[in-house]
Amino acid sequence: MTRRFVAQLTDGEALEEIYLVADKQLRANRNGNLYLQLELRDRTGAMSARLWNVGEQLAHTFETGDFLLVKGKVQLFQGALQIILTGFERCETQKVELTDFLPRTEFDINKLLEKMRGYLLKLTNPHLRALAECFLMDEPLIRDFAQVPAGVRNHHAYVGGLLEHVVNLMDVADRVSPCYPGVDRDLLLTGIFLHDIGKVRELTIGRAFAYTDEGQLVGHIVIGVEMLAEKVARVPDLTGEPFPAELLWRVKHMIVSHHGELGFGSPVLPMTPEAIALHHLDNLDAKIHTFVRDIRDDRNQVSAWTQYNPSMSRRLFKGAPGGAAYSPTLEDQ
Amino acid sequence: MTRRFVAQLTDGEALEEIYLVADKQLRANRNGNLYLQLELRDRTGAMSARLWNVGEQLAHTFETGDFLLVKGKVQLFQGALQIILTGFERCETQKVELTDFLPRTEFDINKLLEKMRGYLLKLTNPHLRALAECFLMDEPLIRDFAQVPAGVRNHHAYVGGLLEHVVNLMDVADRVSPCYPGVDRDLLLTGIFLHDIGKVRELTIGRAFAYTDEGQLVGHIVIGVEMLAEKVARVPDLTGEPFPAELLWRVKHMIVSHHGELGFGSPVLPMTPEAIALHHLDNLDAKIHTFVRDIRDDRNQVSAWTQYNPSMSRRLFKGAPGGAAYSPTLEDQ
Amino acid sequence: MTRRFVAQLTDGEALEEIYLVADKQLRANRNGNLYLQLELRDRTGAMSARLWNVGEQLAHTFETGDFLLVKGKVQLFQGALQIILTGFERCETQKVELTDFLPRTEFDINKLLEKMRGYLLKLTNPHLRALAECFLMDEPLIRDFAQVPAGVRNHHAYVGGLLEHVVNLMDVADRVSPCYPGVDRDLLLTGIFLHDIGKVRELTIGRAFAYTDEGQLVGHIVIGVEMLAEKVARVPDLTGEPFPAELLWRVKHMIVSHHGELGFGSPVLPMTPEAIALHHLDNLDAKIHTFVRDIRDDRNQVSAWTQYNPSMSRRLFKGAPGGAAYSPTLEDQ
Amino acid sequence: MTRRFVAQLTDGEALEEIYLVADKQLRANRNGNLYLQLELRDRTGAMSARLWNVGEQLAHTFETGDFLLVKGKVQLFQGALQIILTGFERCETQKVELTDFLPRTEFDINKLLEKMRGYLLKLTNPHLRALAECFLMDEPLIRDFAQVPAGVRNHHAYVGGLLEHVVNLMDVADRVSPCYPGVDRDLLLTGIFLHDIGKVRELTIGRAFAYTDEGQLVGHIVIGVEMLAEKVARVPDLTGEPFPAELLWRVKHMIVSHHGELGFGSPVLPMTPEAIALHHLDNLDAKIHTFVRDIRDDRNQVSAWTQYNPSMSRRLFKGAPGGAAYSPTLEDQ
Amino acid sequence: MTRRFVAQLTDGEALEEIYLVADKQLRANRNGNLYLQLELRDRTGAMSARLWNVGEQLAHTFETGDFLLVKGKVQLFQGALQIILTGFERCETQKVELTDFLPRTEFDINKLLEKMRGYLLKLTNPHLRALAECFLMDEPLIRDFAQVPAGVRNHHAYVGGLLEHVVNLMDVADRVSPCYPGVDRDLLLTGIFLHDIGKVRELTIGRAFAYTDEGQLVGHIVIGVEMLAEKVARVPDLTGEPFPAELLWRVKHMIVSHHGELGFGSPVLPMTPEAIALHHLDNLDAKIHTFVRDIRDDRNQVSAWTQYNPSMSRRLFKGAPGGAAYSPTLEDQ
Amino acid sequence: MTRRFVAQLTDGEALEEIYLVADKQLRANRNGNLYLQLELRDRTGAMSARLWNVGEQLAHTFETGDFLLVKGKVQLFQGALQIILTGFERCETQKVELTDFLPRTEFDINKLLEKMRGYLLKLTNPHLRALAECFLMDEPLIRDFAQVPAGVRNHHAYVGGLLEHVVNLMDVADRVSPCYPGVDRDLLLTGIFLHDIGKVRELTIGRAFAYTDEGQLVGHIVIGVEMLAEKVARVPDLTGEPFPAELLWRVKHMIVSHHGELGFGSPVLPMTPEAIALHHLDNLDAKIHTFVRDIRDDRNQVSAWTQYNPSMSRRLFKGAPGGAAYSPTLEDQ
Repeated sequence: MTRRFVAQLTDGEALEEIYLVADKQLRANRNGNLYLQLELRDRTGAMSARLWNVGEQLAHTFETGDFLLVKGKVQLFQGALQIILTGFERCETQKVELTDFLPRTEFDINKLLEKMRGYLLKLTNPHLRALAECFLMDEPLIRDFAQVPAGVRNHHAYVGGLLEHVVNLMDVADRVSPCYPGVDRDLLLTGIFLHDIGKVRELTIGRAFAYTDEGQLVGHIVIGVEMLAEKVARVPDLTGEPFPAELLWRVKHMIVSHHGELGFGSPVLPMTPEAIALHHLDNLDAKIHTFVRDIRDDRNQVSAWTQYNPSMSRRLFKGAPGGAAYSPTLEDQ
Repeated sequence: MTRRFVAQLTDGEALEEIYLVADKQLRANRNGNLYLQLELRDRTGAMSARLWNVGEQLAHTFETGDFLLVKGKVQLFQGALQIILTGFERCETQKVELTDFLPRTEFDINKLLEKMRGYLLKLTNPHLRALAECFLMDEPLIRDFAQVPAGVRNHHAYVGGLLEHVVNLMDVADRVSPCYPGVDRDLLLTGIFLHDIGKVRELTIGRAFAYTDEGQLVGHIVIGVEMLAEKVARVPDLTGEPFPAELLWRVKHMIVSHHGELGFGSPVLPMTPEAIALHHLDNLDAKIHTFVRDIRDDRNQVSAWTQYNPSMSRRLFKGAPGGAAYSPTLEDQ
Repeated sequence: MTRRFVAQLTDGEALEEIYLVADKQLRANRNGNLYLQLELRDRTGAMSARLWNVGEQLAHTFETGDFLLVKGKVQLFQGALQIILTGFERCETQKVELTDFLPRTEFDINKLLEKMRGYLLKLTNPHLRALAECFLMDEPLIRDFAQVPAGVRNHHAYVGGLLEHVVNLMDVADRVSPCYPGVDRDLLLTGIFLHDIGKVRELTIGRAFAYTDEGQLVGHIVIGVEMLAEKVARVPDLTGEPFPAELLWRVKHMIVSHHGELGFGSPVLPMTPEAIALHHLDNLDAKIHTFVRDIRDDRNQVSAWTQYNPSMSRRLFKGAPGGAAYSPTLEDQ
Repeated sequence: MTRRFVAQLTDGEALEEIYLVADKQLRANRNGNLYLQLELRDRTGAMSARLWNVGEQLAHTFETGDFLLVKGKVQLFQGALQIILTGFERCETQKVELTDFLPRTEFDINKLLEKMRGYLLKLTNPHLRALAECFLMDEPLIRDFAQVPAGVRNHHAYVGGLLEHVVNLMDVADRVSPCYPGVDRDLLLTGIFLHDIGKVRELTIGRAFAYTDEGQLVGHIVIGVEMLAEKVARVPDLTGEPFPAELLWRVKHMIVSHHGELGFGSPVLPMTPEAIALHHLDNLDAKIHTFVRDIRDDRNQVSAWTQYNPSMSRRLFKGAPGGAAYSPTLEDQ
Repeated sequence: MTRRFVAQLTDGEALEEIYLVADKQLRANRNGNLYLQLELRDRTGAMSARLWNVGEQLAHTFETGDFLLVKGKVQLFQGALQIILTGFERCETQKVELTDFLPRTEFDINKLLEKMRGYLLKLTNPHLRALAECFLMDEPLIRDFAQVPAGVRNHHAYVGGLLEHVVNLMDVADRVSPCYPGVDRDLLLTGIFLHDIGKVRELTIGRAFAYTDEGQLVGHIVIGVEMLAEKVARVPDLTGEPFPAELLWRVKHMIVSHHGELGFGSPVLPMTPEAIALHHLDNLDAKIHTFVRDIRDDRNQVSAWTQYNPSMSRRLFKGAPGGAAYSPTLEDQ
Repeated sequence: MTRRFVAQLTDGEALEEIYLVADKQLRANRNGNLYLQLELRDRTGAMSARLWNVGEQLAHTFETGDFLLVKGKVQLFQGALQIILTGFERCETQKVELTDFLPRTEFDINKLLEKMRGYLLKLTNPHLRALAECFLMDEPLIRDFAQVPAGVRNHHAYVGGLLEHVVNLMDVADRVSPCYPGVDRDLLLTGIFLHDIGKVRELTIGRAFAYTDEGQLVGHIVIGVEMLAEKVARVPDLTGEPFPAELLWRVKHMIVSHHGELGFGSPVLPMTPEAIALHHLDNLDAKIHTFVRDIRDDRNQVSAWTQYNPSMSRRLFKGAPGGAAYSPTLEDQ
C-alpha cells in the first residue's frame, strides 16, 4: 500500500499512517482533562494533531523524535487542516522507511548515478579513470554517496542532494569546458566527483541530517583526502603502473582547496586552474540552486520578497505578483 | 611598411622604428662624457638602448612617456639584446598608432563584435532586445567598447579585453543555461553585456591604461547605470511600449550588484537568480583567465611555480618540468 | 474634530477613534467563548484592547495592519490602561491620515523647508544654485523629500526625518565653514542637500516605513545619481551655460562616496575635501542624534544605562539618577 | 643673524649655516679619490651637498643625524641646486635650535595658547574649569603641549601640531554646540583639551619626531588618564569640594574612548553624547586637515591627482589644471 | 542553623529558607482564582514554586530580584521537584548572605590567598616585591580581590574566580619558568598578579555579577594602571629607593597589553617577552578552564557534544558515553 | 680537517674553504677591467669577496646558489672583513655537507631525540604508546624529523627547529599537566609529537629551506593526517587490539585543529580540552621563542627597540642600554 503523505491529506479523510513526532505537548483543557497536542510530519510537510482525554501513562509511551502509527480523521479547523486522533502506536525506527521522513531530491537517484558513472568511465586519462573505477566499485560507499545530502542546512540539504549537485556540476563543466582550453577537463571532472566525498562520513541520515562525531572532529575535507589515499593505493592493480605523484597532488589539491579561502575551511588556497575552476563552479551551482529554490518555495504570496535569510544576509526578489509583464511602467511611477 | 616590434628584433639588425620611452637616464661615463640610457618599449616587450656622447640640451628634448623615432643597431651585450642608437627624433602622439604600444587581445575584435551582436539580436524578450539595439546603434560607444581593457592591471588588461571577456561569458552562459531553468537567459545575457559597460568612461587608453577623472570619482558601476538610463529612454521608440519598470530594475540590479559584496564596491548584494549567476560567472571567467595566462606567461623555466602574485596572495603551480607524465611516482618518494 | 491620540487617553473616558491594528488574537475565555485581544496604536504609542463575545465571522473582517474605527471605554487594569471595545468598523486606508500613525519630526516641516531653501538660494556658485533650483521647482519631489524618514530603523527614522537631518547638517556646515577654508562651502551644502535624495524613491511611507522594490534592488546612492542626472540636464536652461563637467563629477562623487567605506555601500572612497567633510559631518550628526534620543527616550528609570543597542554594539550611559551634581564623590568610593 | 633656510638658498650664493645630515655617503670618484655626498636639511626642505677629496678620517668625524656647520657655495647642477662644500664642523645638539630643523605649525603658537586658555577659563562648570586651571598652571607641561606634534607621521605632524588641532577643534565645537543641545559643551571642550594630552609623554621632539619608550609601551591614552588622575587630585584645593565621581568618569571616558573603536586602540567604545561627539569631531578635523594639506602640498603639476597615500588607501583629487571654471563641459565629452 | 540549598531539597520535605526570586508571575487558574508562580534560586540551582489563592495586594509586596523567606513543602510534579508554598515574607538584602546566592569557586579562598602571598613575598626583585607588599597591605582591596569573579559571563565567572585564575596562572608560570630563561620570572609573576586587578572596581557583586558605571566607562585595563600608580608611589617608603622607571613601564605594559590585540581592548600590543608570555598563559588558562567546565557541567546525557556556545562559535566534544575504552573500533565502522 | 666558518675568520688569515654563493656580480673597474664581487656565506654568517681581473668565461662557470671552494686571504676594508680571492673551483652539491650552510639548533639533536623518545615510551595509554613506537621505528622519518625546521621564515626556522620546538613543548606540557587534571596528558603529549609532523614532507632542506610541491599543494596539516593513517594501521600488530576509533579521531582532531582558527589554516576549530591546550601551548612556545631570539639577535646597539617586524606588526622592547638597574627613575622624569 502506498504511503499517504502529509501533503496529500484532505478534509474529512480517515487516516492510518506513520508520522514522525516533531513536537509533543500534554495539556489540560478547561475542565482539567488532559489532551495531547502533537506536531506530526514526514518529508512533505507537517500537521497538528490532537488526542482528547489521554492518561499520563499513555502520554509517556513515546517522545518527540519517535515514529507513531496514528489512526484518526482529518478535519478543517480555523482555516487549517488538523488530525483528530482516535489512537496511536509507537513504531520501532528499524521498521520505518526513514527517507519518507526526510526531504529528498526531485530527480531519480538511479538516473543521476548512471549519468555520473557515464562521465567518469569516459575520462581519457587512464590513471584518473582507474581511480574513479576504484571508487565506483565500492558499492557501500556509492550507496551512501547517493543518499547523503550536500549539507545539513544549506544548499541541496536533502537525500540525494550531494549526488544531484555533483551531476549538475559535471553537466556544467562538460558544457563550459570548450571555453576554457587551459583547464584539464579530466582533472576537473575528477575534482567535481571527489570534492565533497568526505561528506559520506561527515554526515549521517537518521531521523534528521546530522554531523557524525568524526565529521565534526576531522571535517569532510580531511576525510575526503583519507578516502582518496585508500582508493589510490589500488589503482596500480588496474593500470599496471604507479599513480603519478604530481597527478595525485593535483587531485588532493582540488579537494583541499575547494572552499577557496582559509576562512571558509580550506587549509590551502586554489593554486591550479582546475582548483580555481572547481571552487567557482561549486559556488555558482550552490548559490543559483539556493536562490531558485528559496524563491520557488517561499510561501508568502503578498510580498515580492522572500523572508530574510540570515546565512546570506539578504532577502531575495521574487518579483511583483503578475511579474514583469504587468508591473507598473516607468511612466506610471 | 609593417612595424618592427621589439619581440622581432635580432642581433645585428639595423633599425628605424618608433618606440615609447619607458625610462630615461642621463649618465656620465668614466671619462665624464654624458650618455643616454633608455628603456624603449611597444606592446610586445621592452629593450635597453644607449646613445653615447649626448649634450644636455639634446637630452632634454623629450621625456619619459614620449614616443621616439629611433635609428640604430641591435647588438648582443652580456647575454641580452640592446640598441645602440645613432640618432632619434620625438614624435607627436597624434601621429602614433597607440595600440601598437599597448597589449591587445589575441582574438579578432571584429569577430568578437559579431558574436556579441549575434547573441543580443536573438534575445527573445522584445524590451531587452530593443535595449541592446539602442546600445549597438551607438557606434562611437561600441567602438570604445571594443577597445577598452577589462581593467588596468587585473584580468583581461589589454586592448579588447572587456569585449573578449564579455563574449566568453556569453558563450559560457549560453552553454550552461539549460542546466539552470530558474535563471532567465535573456536577462543574464543582457547583464553580461552591460555589467562593465561603465568602463568605457571609467578607463582611458592613452600611452598606458589609466583611470579617467570621472572614472575615479564616480566608478564604472554608477556610470554604467547612467548609460543604461540614457539608452532605456529610447527603447519605446523601437517597441512602441513603455519599458517595464520591474524589468529595468532587474537590469540595473545586475549592474549594481555584480561585484557580489559591499566590500568589493557593489552598493547592494545580488538578490535575483540572474544577478547571483552573473556575479559568479564573472568571477569564474576572470579567475580562470588569470590563472591560465599567469601560468602560460611565466618566464622562469626552473621553478614549478609562478612568481608570488600579491593581489591573489599566492603563487600558482605550473607543474614540474616534463609535467604529470614524467613526474616522480609515489614509489619514488 | 481633533484626533484623540493614544498618549492622551485617560482612565474612564469614552472613545471613538481610528487606530492601526498592530496585533490581533482571537482567544477563547475559560467558558469557551471567543474574544478579540488587540494591540492598537498610532504615532504616539500603543494600547491593549479587548472585545468580548465575538463570532468568528466578525473576527475575520480585518487583519493586522488594517485601520479600525473603534468605540469603547478606557479603563485601568493591572496598573495599565486598556480599552474595552463595544464595536468597531474597518476603515479604508485612503480615508486615513497615515502620518497620524507614524512617528514624526518634532520640528515644523514648513519652517525646515524654508530654512533649506534659504541656504540653497544663497549659494554663490551659479551652476550649483541653478541645480538646486531645478530640484526645488519639482514640487512633488520636494513634497516627498519633506516627508521621507532618513531610514527605516536607524537615526531620524520618522516622518520628516531626512529633512530635519539635512537642515541640521546645513546649519552645522554653515557654522564650521570658516574653520575649513580649504573646503568649498557651496559644494558642501549642495552635497548635504543631495546626499540622501535617492531615499525619496528608496523608501515608502505606508502603514510603516519600508523599502520599495526599486530601493532594495538599486539603492539610494545610485537612485540619487540618476535623479541628479535628470535635473542637471535642465540647468543650462537657467544659466545659459553648460554645466561644468568637473563640477558635476564632484557633486556625484559626494553622493557616491558619502558612506565613507566600500563595506558601508559606497562604491568609491571620498577623494575630495568636500566629500570627506560630508561623510564625517553626516556621521557626526547621525550619531549624536541617536545617542541623545536613545538616552532621552529610555524608559527604564532604575538603570543608569540604556538597553543594549545591537546595531551599535553597546549600551549608553544616561548617568546616575540625580546626575553629576549628586553623584557620590571620590572620597566616598 | 637670522638663519638661512634651505628654501631660501639661491644659485651662486656663499653659505655658512647649520644643517642636519639626513644622509651621508663616502664615495670614490673615477680616479679613486674619495668624496662625501651628503643630504642636508632643515624644516624647510633638503639639498644635496658634495665635498671633494676628503680623507677617511675626516669622513668619520660625524654621522647621519648629526648637525654640521657647513661652508661652501650653492650651484645649479642638472637643473637642481646643490652645495659644493669647502669645509664643515660638527655641532653639539645642545647648541642647535632644534625646531629650526623640524616642520612647524603655520600659526603663532602663543596666540593659539591664548585662544585655548580663553575657552578653558570660561567653562561654566566650576569643577571642569578648576581642572583645566590645574593643567594650565603646570608650565612645563603646557610648554611641551605647545610643541608636541599630533602624530609622528599622520595629521598635524609638526611642531605645535597638537595645539593647532586642539584649538581648531575648540573653535568647531564652540560653533556647532548650539546645534546639539543634548551635548554638554563644557564636557566636550574639556575632552577636546585632554583627549591627546598623553602625547606630551608619548612623543619626543629630538632631531625628528619619535616615540618615547614609555609612549610605545603604555600609549598616550593610558598616559593621558594618569596625567588626569594627578591633576584632578588637586582640584579640591581650588574648589573646596570633592570632584564629582561621575563627572570624572565622564572625562576619563572621553579620553579612553576617543579613537572610537577597539581596533583603533580605544579599550572602550564611546557611550556618552560627549564621547561620540569628540570622536567624530576629532576624525573630521584630522581628515579634512590631511586632505587639504595633501592637495595643497602635492608637487606634481601634471596630474589631477595626488600620489597614492597608503595609509588612506587612496589618491586625492586636486582637480584638473585650471579647475572647475575651465574644465571640459558636458557637451565636449 | 546551616542553610538548606536548592540542590539539597528532596521530595516531601518541609522547608523554611531564604531564596532569591528569579522570576515571578501572577496567574489565574481555570476558576479565575489567582496564584503565584515563582522561580526561586540560590547558588546551587533553581526550582519552581507555587502559592495558590493569593490576593493581588500580597502579590505586589515583592518583585523579581528580591529575597523571600519561604515556608512550604517540596513535592514531585511531572518528574521534577517543586515547592508548594504556604507563606512567605520579604527579606531585606542587608540581612542576606549574598554569596549564598552566587556561584563560588570550589577552592578554599583563604588557601588561595596564602598561596598567592607566598609567591609574591618570595619575589627576588626588591622593587617588585615591595610593590606587591603595598598591594597586599591594602586589606579592603585584597578582600575584594578575593571575591571578584574573573568575568560576568565568561571563564571563572564566580565568587573567587579571579583569585583562583591568578593562583593557577602563578602555578603554571612557576612550573614553566625554567623552560623559558629569557622570560623574567619576577616580572611575569607580578604581571599575573596585577593584569586584571582593575576588575575589583570594574565589577560588582550584588544579587548578580554586574559592571559598575566606572567599569563600563573606563574599563579594567585603565583602572588597573591607575591602581598601580597609586601603589607604586608608596614603594620608596619600603625600599628607600625610587622605583626604576623602565621597570614600572614594563609592569604597566603587561597590564595594558595583556588582551594581546587592539581588537580585544588592549591599546598596545605585547612587546616584551613577559607581556607575550602573560597574554598567552592567560589565554591558555582561561580556555582550558572553560572547556573542562563546560564539558563537566553539560547536562545532556544523550549527546556526545555540549550545547552550541555562541561566544566560542562551537560545540565541545564530551566523548561518546562509555568513552574511549568502549567506543566502536575502526573495524566496526 | 674541521671547517673554517665565516664567523671564525680573522684579518690576515689565508683561507681555503667551501662557501655558498649568496650573490654574484660581474663588474668593470675604472679601467674597464672586469672583477667578480661575491657574497659568500655559511650557516654562521656572510662576507664579501672580490676576485680581480677575471674573464667573462670564468665568471660564467657558476651561478648564485652554487658552492665554491675558494682560496684567498681575509683582509680588513672600510672597517669590515672581506676576502680577496686568488682562485676558486665549483663544488658539486652532493659533496657538500649542506647543514654547514644552514642555521641550526643550538641544542644537541641526539639529546633532543632521546628526550622525546623518553616522553613517548613512557605514555601510559597502550594504544598511544604503540602509535608513537610505530613512528619511532621509522628511521628515515625520524631522521628527517630531527632535521626539518619548524618553518621557512618564522619561529624555529633552522635545522632541528621542529624537534627543539616539540621537545620544549613536551617539557612545558609535562610541567603544567598537574595544574590541568581535566586535560589527558597522554593525548596532549601525542598531539605535541604529531601536530607538525607533516612538515617533514611539506618542507625541504636544500641550499635553503623551501616548500615542496606537495607541501604547497596539500599543506602539512593534511599530510600529517595521512602519515598518521599509515602508522595507525600498524598499531594492532603491537597491541593485539584494534585502535579505538574515538581515540583516533581525538588525535587527528589535534593535528587538524592546532592552528586554532579557520583563517589560520585549520579546517576545524579545537573542540576538546587537549586540542585547545595544544593550540595555546604551541602559540606560547613559538611566540616566546621569537620574542627572546629577536631581542637577543638584534644588532643595533643604540636603539632600545628591535627592527620593525612586519609579520608581527610591531617592534620589540630590548630595554634601555644598562637595563632596568640604571634606567632613569621616576623622580628624574
